[in-house]
Amino acid sequence: MFRKILYPTDFSAAAGKALEYVKKLKEAGTKEVVLLHIIDGNELEAMVETCMWKNEDVGKCEKEIERRMKQKAREKMKKIKEELEKEGIKTKVSVRIGKPFVEIINVAKKEKVSLIVMGSHGRSVVEEMLLGSVAESVIHHASVPVMIIKR
Amino acid sequence: MFRKILYPTDFSAAAGKALEYVKKLKEAGTKEVVLLHIIDGNELEAMVETCMWKNEDVGKCEKEIERRMKQKAREKMKKIKEELEKEGIKTKVSVRIGKPFVEIINVAKKEKVSLIVMGSHGRSVVEEMLLGSVAESVIHHASVPVMIIKR
Repeated sequence: MFRKILYPTDFSAAAGKALEYVKKLKEAGTKEVVLLHIIDGNELEAMVETCMWKNEDVGKCEKEIERRMKQKAREKMKKIKEELEKEGIKTKVSVRIGKPFVEIINVAKKEKVSLIVMGSHGRSVVEEMLLGSVAESVIHHASVPVMIIKR
Repeated sequence: MFRKILYPTDFSAAAGKALEYVKKLKEAGTKEVVLLHIIDGNELEAMVETCMWKNEDVGKCEKEIERRMKQKAREKMKKIKEELEKEGIKTKVSVRIGKPFVEIINVAKKEKVSLIVMGSHGRSVVEEMLLGSVAESVIHHASVPVMIIKR
């Protein structure tokens, strides 16, 4: 039931709290964790726009932003991976660019996980009410159980 | 983290599946379960309307409907309680009348549970999209982690 967990993280406090639950679930049989970070495609696009304002080579600027964001994410992921492996949980790291809830659902399917454990916090109360948080979209679309840890 | 679980059930297949997760969490430290069933106040009201159609004494008819619904629920709850206690998990039973997600949040606070485990299934796709399922409302309003088991 808890053998393979997908743990998506945006490095927020809520995600950090969710990591403690992932570790604790080892007692109930967790052997493997897929550690996922999604670089929000919309955010990336917004950053690329600043390249245009500065009249920079957009293609080159975009690649540079992407490279830096991925690198930053991988450094943070490495630390979490080490934490999980210290607990004796096999850990696979994945960094993707896209719409967060869509990528979470895609990875959950591809990796055939038995559970998704994630933090929840809307960016703002208004956004959460209008669009639903990432967590709620995941619950709507996931076919496996989802555990949501609140901020 | 998993010491005291609130397990709300509407006796659906999704809720039945969620019960298996509750049992499994014993391995991660679950000692106590609050088993909760909510008789939907709107449903009860709709049933009371049929008393009016039949020109029956509404007050008496309402009490009778309520009594039967509670009794039916308590019989089903008794079986689930026995199942949980057989696993060595202390179980407290509660039957309430009201708006399901509101009562779930109220009991979670009152009982100071550490986790809510519940099944999720909208009555219809349209209702789920318009109003959000009970599970989604619980996630919105709960301050403790919520684990959602899909149908």
